[in-house]
Parts: sequence; structure tokens; C-alpha cells
Amino acid sequence: MKLPELQTPCLLLDEAKLRHNIEAMHRRLARPGVAFRPHLKTAKSLDVAQIAMTAPGGPAMVSTLREAEYFADGGVRDMIYGVGIAPAKLQRVSAIRRRGVDLAIILDSVAQAEAVARHASAGGDSVPALIEIDGDGHRSGAAPGDGATLVAIGRALETGGAELRGVLIHAGGSYALSDPEALAAAAEAERLAAVTAAGTLRAAGLACPVVSIGSTPTACFARNLDGVTEVRAGVFMFGDLYQAGVGAVALDDIALSVLCSVIGHQRAKGWILVDAGWMAMSRDRGTANQAVDQGYGLVCDATGRIFGDLVLVEANQEHGIVALRPGSAAVLPDLPVGTQLRILPNHACATAAQYDRYHVLNGGDDVTAVWSRINGW
Amino acid sequence: MKLPELQTPCLLLDEAKLRHNIEAMHRRLARPGVAFRPHLKTAKSLDVAQIAMTAPGGPAMVSTLREAEYFADGGVRDMIYGVGIAPAKLQRVSAIRRRGVDLAIILDSVAQAEAVARHASAGGDSVPALIEIDGDGHRSGAAPGDGATLVAIGRALETGGAELRGVLIHAGGSYALSDPEALAAAAEAERLAAVTAAGTLRAAGLACPVVSIGSTPTACFARNLDGVTEVRAGVFMFGDLYQAGVGAVALDDIALSVLCSVIGHQRAKGWILVDAGWMAMSRDRGTANQAVDQGYGLVCDATGRIFGDLVLVEANQEHGIVALRPGSAAVLPDLPVGTQLRILPNHACATAAQYDRYHVLNGGDDVTAVWSRINGW
Repeated sequence: MKLPELQTPCLLLDEAKLRHNIEAMHRRLARPGVAFRPHLKTAKSLDVAQIAMTAPGGPAMVSTLREAEYFADGGVRDMIYGVGIAPAKLQRVSAIRRRGVDLAIILDSVAQAEAVARHASAGGDSVPALIEIDGDGHRSGAAPGDGATLVAIGRALETGGAELRGVLIHAGGSYALSDPEALAAAAEAERLAAVTAAGTLRAAGLACPVVSIGSTPTACFARNLDGVTEVRAGVFMFGDLYQAGVGAVALDDIALSVLCSVIGHQRAKGWILVDAGWMAMSRDRGTANQAVDQGYGLVCDATGRIFGDLVLVEANQEHGIVALRPGSAAVLPDLPVGTQLRILPNHACATAAQYDRYHVLNGGDDVTAVWSRINGW
Repeated sequence: MKLPELQTPCLLLDEAKLRHNIEAMHRRLARPGVAFRPHLKTAKSLDVAQIAMTAPGGPAMVSTLREAEYFADGGVRDMIYGVGIAPAKLQRVSAIRRRGVDLAIILDSVAQAEAVARHASAGGDSVPALIEIDGDGHRSGAAPGDGATLVAIGRALETGGAELRGVLIHAGGSYALSDPEALAAAAEAERLAAVTAAGTLRAAGLACPVVSIGSTPTACFARNLDGVTEVRAGVFMFGDLYQAGVGAVALDDIALSVLCSVIGHQRAKGWILVDAGWMAMSRDRGTANQAVDQGYGLVCDATGRIFGDLVLVEANQEHGIVALRPGSAAVLPDLPVGTQLRILPNHACATAAQYDRYHVLNGGDDVTAVWSRINGW
């Protein structure tokens, strides 16, 4: 199938760029004793997972139990569910684990550890748990220097027959950076917080085999991985305008785009209307706070060549307004009704979630495969 | 099934509020010669459509051809596809029409009209088309005073054997308002633009049976419907915080919410972590530009009672941060890990699109039904 045969909007995935991004990350992290655990929350696709994982059974990271179930169906056997556990989800966790999947959970409080311990002793499933560490104050996690809490969590788990698997940190604060030195410093701070917490637990006599760090920016800019046993990253596979703004991917390496069609013009305003609105792109406007605001996306021709300064400046549910960036000296291209365009997304995780499949390209405009993906919880 | 048995996050729909909102709209628009054409793009659910439509076969409005196919499967026989037609979609339009569905399209240019006419004469399907009118400069549409373009579009359709069904306008600019008088004025401007365009077409000897207007704000505030044959509105059924900010729905009438669970705390910061992030709420931050910024959503207890000043202040993919509104004098409630909360969304269309089903409540905390919905194109 060729691009002109596709109904728009639809999601395109350039397999060559995907493989390039993944191979670069595998090379970057190829160090003795350090595993790579790709986060599958961006792609939510078994086809992509099989390229991203270093082995067919994992390791891998998931953001929902629905993902854990789906990837378990696909043969993945080593996963961490990366959202602090709500006790009501433990039965579902154990149901997945009973299928032979080493599914671990994360938590950051004694209350959760006690709930996990009660679940373990009642049901006989010693659910492995990692303590989430908060290194940069952006979200959840126990403070790396709060030894009392860390040890209390570890003891609550072990006393109840659950398993303390290790510590896990995500430097979400790194998303706000763009200077390579600052990113390297964020990566080192992330590593240090995790290693410090692990050291505290071990000093208290608790086993802490896993020290898991990662985010796309810090995985790209980390120099030192001493004491780290695994690195996680997800959005780097597809790349997006936000990560390009951070400097974690090159614009030309963005593998994901939305194919749309021109449906009209408001010529006096310099507007080109397309059938990709926020439903097709997501409402994500993350680049609004970066040095270059990409609107709802950066516009390319149907072959993927970026136009100078042409962005999706506004989006309604199914309508997008393409126009030149404010202040641009470029000339608005003449794009008749029916012209196909590709739009690079601000945030691959959010845009991909608006779709149930990827139309896979490999360089040209032939669709070489259709890969399904899941959504929901 | 009771709420505590649901896995979070999930989408709740209060059927009593839904019916209340729909009945109020039906009463408001009950005037001789004026049909109500509910927009099904918010709900994308046949169960909701059957409550919203005035008859099982329609009329109804859709935002994608996927919706048109789905609702055709469910027996809807009178629909308008409300996004300017791309010529490559005409084959799909005619395939739906061959099933006995009166599916009409919209357009705003001679180029589109000529493409429709070519399609009509080549395939024998006289696809009915409405000319989209731009009354407030917010998006697509021909200018209501541009008689030359309007008549040229009409003639291009009729000459080629397609059907000029009428004119259609959507006062999207009304979303930025909140003063009742300004909203009434926007509704009158919308009506006048549509009626003017219809008059121009008729004066040129072109049939223009349908004069279709509408948006939730203008449908709620219109006083005069002279010359109008139908009114459209969609988001009013569910309501949301944005429409509450406009004044088109009451906070207490919002029928849609996201059920989530507390998964942690950062007590020093006054943060409560929940398992509803932007994937559960959407990235929509529409209320950021209104008088009351509701963050990513307004927090209620599990019964739907709104807490004072408690909002989802930040959202990552699967994590939400609940905190008091900046400057609030309220006391942060004590909500232990595992507590269920409901979050009212900024934008019902965007939030509902993150799910494939509604858990339907009818007053209490019993789930009385599960209604499926569709997404995609």
C-alpha cells in the first residue's frame, strides 16, 4: 500500500529511524553489568518491543497493568510496572505473575509496603518491589537521604514475605533541560541518588540487587554508570519535537509522524486547514515552554522533508491550522486541497496513544507493515 | 459492580446527569421547524446517541467517517460529517451512503465542490454537501458575505450532479466567552451569518433547504432561531470544566469523571499522588485561559462531592499530582493510599477519547452498565 491510499489522519512509523535510534541506545549503554530495560509505554506494541528489547523475554518496563498483560501474552517475562502500586491492583499483579512472568512493582511508603506484605503472606506470592527514589522533586518517590523510611519500607516488605528487589529512580526533572552539561549533571545526580539509597539499604542488611535509573535525556547524557545495574528509557525510540528541544534526539531521527490531508485554506490569513486536529496530534503543547515552540507539530511534505517554519499553529478536535511560525520570513507553500502532509509530534507518547496501529514505512512511501498497539488500563 | 471493585483509572458516566443535560437541551430547542442534530463526537457511543437523538435514526452529526460507519451499524440514517471533505474520502462516503444512510458532507471551496461533482458524475452518487460558513474567523468556512464564492460552490455542485443541501456554521469563537450577553450576541451573529449565506444562495436560484447552526455555548444562549432549520451541539451532554467556565453547564451537571486511586504523598509539598495522569485526563489545559484555572481537573471524593480548591495541578503520563489551588486557604484532606477519587475533566471530548468504555452510574456507586465507545478514524 502507498501513502496516497491511506485514509487520513493516520500514524506513520519509519522503521529505519526506529532501528537507528534503538541501535544507538544499545551501543551507548553496552557496559558490563548494566542491563537495558526499554520502557514500552510509548510504543505499546509488541512489534516495537521485540526490536527494543535486548532479548525476546525482556527486560522491559510498563506503565499500566494492561501493558503487562499484553506483553505477557507476547512472551515478555521480565517487567517492572512503573507506577506506585495501589493495593487494589495487587490481585491483578499476582494473576500476571502466576503466568510465569517476573513482574515487579514499585512503591515509596511504608503503608504500601505493608499492603504488599499482607498480600504476600495471604496469597503466597512474594511480589518483588523496588523502592522508588525521588532525586529531583518532580513527582513521587522517597528521598534518597531518608534512610529511616527506606529501611522501614524494606523491612516491612521482607517481614511480610514480600521481596525487596531494589531501588528505582526516574529523573523527570531532566526534561526541562537542554544544555548537555546540565543533562550530564542531572544524569549523575540520578545515579548518585539511586546508589546512595541502595547503599543505605545494604548497610541495614537488606538485599538490594537492582539499581534502576533512567529517562531518555539522562540515558543519552550519562557518563558514569558505576553502581547502576540497569538503565531505562522509552521515548527515544520514536523521538519527538520535545526530545529534540532537549537535545536527546535529532530532528531527522524522529520516527513518528501523523499523515494528514489539506482540506481547505483561509488565504487572507495564511492558513492551510488540515484534517489533523488535537485528536490526531494529542493536546500536548510541551514545546511551548522550550526555546522553539513547535505549536501542535512541525509540518513536513508527504516524503518527510521538513518545510521551513511551517507548524500546526492551532488545533480543534479534527481540524488543524497550518501556518508559518510567527515572524517567519519564509513563503507559505502552495498546498492544494487533498495534498498529503506529515506532522512531527511534540510528544510521541501522547500522539501515539491516539491511535490503535502504526503504518510502518521503510524509507520510501510504501507501507511495509501495519503494527497494532494497545491503549487503556 | 461497585466502585471499589473497578481498576483505576477508569471513566465514569452519571446517567441521571446525562439525561438531565439532554432533556434540558431538547426543551430549550423545542421550536417548530427547528431540528436538533446532536454532535456525537464527544460520546462516540451508540448508547449515548440513542438518548441524545430525537429519533433512533437521527439526525446526528459526526466528526470522523469511522463514527459515521459505527453509527450506521447502529441504525443511524441521517448524518453530517462535519470536517471539510478531502477528495480521497469520497469513495468511503459513498460506501456508507450505499447502505441507505443519508450522509452529507461539508466544504468551503470551489475546488472541493468540483471534486465532489466529478465524484458524483463518475459514480452516480449525488453526495449532498453543505457549504461551511465562517462567522467568526476561528477556523474554516467561506465568508458569509462572499456571495461570489458561495454561488460558485453551489453551481459547481449542481452542475456536476451533486446536491447543495444547505449551509452550516459553527461558532467556535463562542468558546472564548463567558458573559451571557456576549454569548447571546455570538449566537445571533452565528444565526445571521448562516441565514445571510442561505439568502444569497436562494437569491441566485439555488436550493438551500438546510440552515444548520450550533455549538454548545450558542445552543445554550441563542434567543432567536428565525431562518434556522437545525441546531447542533455535543459536549453539553457530558459537560466539563471548560463549559462550566463558559457558563454553558453547571459544575453539578458534569456527568463525566475519571475514577482514580491515591498512590502516594509528598507531604512536605502538600502533594497527593494519584494514578490518573495525562493519559487518563488528556493533555487538555483549556481552563488555563479562563477565569478559574482547574489544572488538569477538579477533584471530588468517590461519591462525586467536590472538595474545596483541590485540583490536579500536574500530570505525567500515568501520575497525577493533586494539591490545593495556589493561594487556597483550605486544608488538604487526609487521603490515604488506596482512596478512590473522581476527577472532573477540563474537556469531555478529549478525556473520553482516552477510553474505550464508560462505566455508567445512576446516582449511587453501583455500576449499572458498561457502554462501549469508539475512537480513531
